[in-house]
Order: sequence, then C-alpha cells, then structure tokens
Amino acid sequence: MTIPEIVGWSAAFFNAVTFVPQVYKTWKTKSAGDVSIQMFIIAIINASLWSIYGIMVHDSIVYMVNTIVFFLSAIQIILKVKYDRADKKKVMSC
Amino acid sequence: MTIPEIVGWSAAFFNAVTFVPQVYKTWKTKSAGDVSIQMFIIAIINASLWSIYGIMVHDSIVYMVNTIVFFLSAIQIILKVKYDRADKKKVMSC
Repeated sequence: MTIPEIVGWSAAFFNAVTFVPQVYKTWKTKSAGDVSIQMFIIAIINASLWSIYGIMVHDSIVYMVNTIVFFLSAIQIILKVKYDRADKKKVMSC
Repeated sequence: MTIPEIVGWSAAFFNAVTFVPQVYKTWKTKSAGDVSIQMFIIAIINASLWSIYGIMVHDSIVYMVNTIVFFLSAIQIILKVKYDRADKKKVMSC
C-alpha cells in the first residue's frame, strides 16, 4: 500500500463516520433545535452525487463511503423533524 | 465535459458548501448546544486528510474543496465553543 493510498483510506474512513457523533447526540438528547436541516439536505444531495459518480467511474470506495453518509444524513433529518415537532408540542412552563 | 465530470463537479460544489447552513444558523441564533463538536473535529481531520491526499495525487479539486470544508469546520468549532460558554454564563431565570 502506498502512502497516498493510506491517506486516502484514512480520509474515506473519517468521511464515512463524520455524521455519527451528531446522529448519536441527537438520538441521546432528543433535541436538534440548533442543528441545521439544510446542512443535512445538502449532505444527502452531496452523498447521492458522489455515489452516482463512484458508480460511473467504477470507484467502489467513493460509492460505499457516500452510501453510508447518505443513510446517516437521512437518519439525522428524520430525528430532527421528529424532535423539533415534539419540542413544539411541549407546553412552555417558564 | 463528460457526464461523470459534470456529476463530479456538482458533487464537489455541494461538498464544499455542506457546512455553510450550519455555520450561518449558529452565527444567526448564537446557539449551538445541540450541535456535536465531535462531528466537526472529525470533519477537520477528514478535510485535512483529503487535502493531503489531493496534494499527493495532484488533484486540485479534492484539495480546494477540502480546504473550504476545513475552514468552515474550524469556524463552526470556534462559534460552538464561544456560544456554549456564553450559554453557561447565562443565569437561568426559570
């Protein structure tokens, strides 16, 4: 394995797991008011385009990494919509 | 320009701007309690590795896109640390 390959693989790994802490935090705290839904919508578009690109140029790494990013973004959007709705329903006691 | 090139360029564009809505939202609301700092730390590592990879394989697009992602992640971390500290200082009036 060459040095660029090692760097590329490491980058691909961190790329795939980037959204894991945010999804975990949102799931744990059940709150995502400060999280931008637009960011994750762009991330889904981004991951879809990279996945299509990966298929087109026969790059399975690009395809696999971005499929993971796509699903993490989708989970984050679902959690945000769910918890934002729940927050709205809460009666403010202050 | 081939179709894979068009898809790749579009992906690169969306990749570069992914964090813009989050940075804007945090700056606008002055609140980032729900945002995971770990996500942006991973994003900085990720962007650094892709930038190094871009330099190594002489891919200026990979390098440029990830330099933008690096700086946006750094700005987001600075804003989060700043506003989280400000939140802690606030006296809870409820």
